[in-house]
Parts: sequence; C-alpha cells; structure tokens
Amino acid sequence: TSAKPMKETEGVSFVSEIMSTNVVTIEKDASVYKAAKIIMDSEFNHLPVVSKDSSLVGIVTAWDISKAVSQDKFDLVEDMMTRKVITAKTDERVDVVARRLDLKGVSALPVLNKENHVIGIITSDDISKLYARRH
Amino acid sequence: TSAKPMKETEGVSFVSEIMSTNVVTIEKDASVYKAAKIIMDSEFNHLPVVSKDSSLVGIVTAWDISKAVSQDKFDLVEDMMTRKVITAKTDERVDVVARRLDLKGVSALPVLNKENHVIGIITSDDISKLYARRH
Ligand SMILES: C[S@@+](CC[C@H](N)C(=O)[O-])C[C@H]1O[C@@H](n2cnc3c(N)ncnc32)[C@H](O)[C@@H]1O
Repeated sequence: TSAKPMKETEGVSFVSEIMSTNVVTIEKDASVYKAAKIIMDSEFNHLPVVSKDSSLVGIVTAWDISKAVSQDKFDLVEDMMTRKVITAKTDERVDVVARRLDLKGVSALPVLNKENHVIGIITSDDISKLYARRH
Repeated sequence: TSAKPMKETEGVSFVSEIMSTNVVTIEKDASVYKAAKIIMDSEFNHLPVVSKDSSLVGIVTAWDISKAVSQDKFDLVEDMMTRKVITAKTDERVDVVARRLDLKGVSALPVLNKENHVIGIITSDDISKLYARRH
C-alpha cells in the first residue's frame, strides 16, 4: 500500500525508461487508408509523420481519421496531419511530460534525439502503467 | 521534487476523484459517421454504446473507426463496437484501474453505477494527469 514507503515509489522516472522504441511512422504522401491500416496493424493510435530524410513533419492519429470520416474527406496524410507536433526528449522527466500532455490536450508525444529523428513515442498509457507500478 | 515527501503524494486516489462525468454515449443503431462526428466534437476517443434503457452494450473508439476506414466497411455502431466492455466502479482505487487498463491493453474504461448505467469514463489521460500532480 502507499502507506509503506518503498524505494521504487520515490525515484524520478525519465522518458527513456518507459517510452516505446518500436514506434511506427508514416510518410506524408501516404493515403488516409494506409494510415488507417497501419494504425490497425500496429495498435498505436498516433503515427509520427516523417519526410524522406526521417525528420518529423507532423502527426496523424486515429482521431484524425475519425474526423476525416465525419467530414467525408479522405485526403493524403499531409492534408489531415497536425503539423505543429508537441514532442519529448529521452532525458526529460516523466512528470514534466505528463504535464505537457495535459496542457496540450494530447495523449502521446513522439520522442526525438539530438538530430530531431523520431526514436520513440511516449503515451499516457505508458504513464498510467508507471502509476500502476508505483502505487 | 519527489525527495521531499508530501501528504498529497501519499494518499490513495479513487476513480470518482479523477473520472470525467461529462461522458458522451452513443446508441447502437447509430451510423459510423455519427460516431465519428461525436468523437470529433467531444475530443473523446472512446464512446460507450448504450441501449434505449441506458445500459451499456458496447464501446466504440476512434481506433474502431480507423479500422472501418482501412477495411472500407462502414456499418452501424453495433456491427463494429466491442461488446465485452471492461469497466470500472467509482469506488475503485486508481492504481487497480491502471493495472486493468494495462492488462487489457485499453486506454479507457466506462464507469458504472450500481444499476450498470454509465456515469463517467476514466482514461489513461486522467491517470497521467494524476501522476503529473503527484510528482
Ligand atoms: C486534441 S487530440 C484529442 C484526442 C486524443 N487525446 C489524442 O491525443 O489523439 C486530437 C488531435 O491532437 C493531435 N495530436 C495528437 N498528438 C499530438 C502531438 N504530440 N502533437 C501535436 N498534435 C497532436 C492529433 O493530430 C489530433 O488532431
């Protein structure tokens, strides 16, 4: 129980410890159908969109595809993605990232390395799992 | 910092304290388009599906709509919803619910009252937010 303090409950956690590294990305000239297929196959809801040189240019999610359905507008990924992507770095604290998710109203952040390449993704699912381990 | 123990970091949290009560539901004979529209308007990813008497009969998510797109199969909500819904109760501990989310591989649980009516929803976003407050 939380009344008995344990070492583990007191440590600081970093993004690198809980992010997924098997992140699946998509190119901006892919179709909505392809994005939907990748989301279905990967069980990820958030796909970072990358350009040919692997740099991050957007993010597309199951929510965006649902929006496309509601508007009956099936364009390319680049027409429906969010361009201003909120991101995280591997050495950031998880609590800092959790506040960023909350503030920005999103559920996942692509994790970038120094070259701005996507090397992982951290989601509120990952943070919830960490909460479970610590309580 | 987490090195300085605070009262707040030690308490046990319950579902009722962090769930959303403004949950939006959908009826099972609604169209996929309607579900997509509600998801877009509400910014929720998860819609509990209820029958005429308000009891829970399924759940439909942005992910399911994305799946429908990838299969080019736009049926009614009842044809695409998940019927075996994992749920939570208001008086459960958040850590217990966080473990259930992880174990079942889902991001949200409808919260039921004693009559099995949906009175809220708890998501990994809510738990991540709680983590942010406590660290
Ligand atoms: C407002 S959120 C609501 C649904 C859910 N919380 C989510 O994150 O998908 C949906 C919108 O946020 C965008 N989005 C998701 N993650 C993002 C991120 N890391 N940076 C910028 N936009 C993001 C999506 O492209 C989508 O248009």
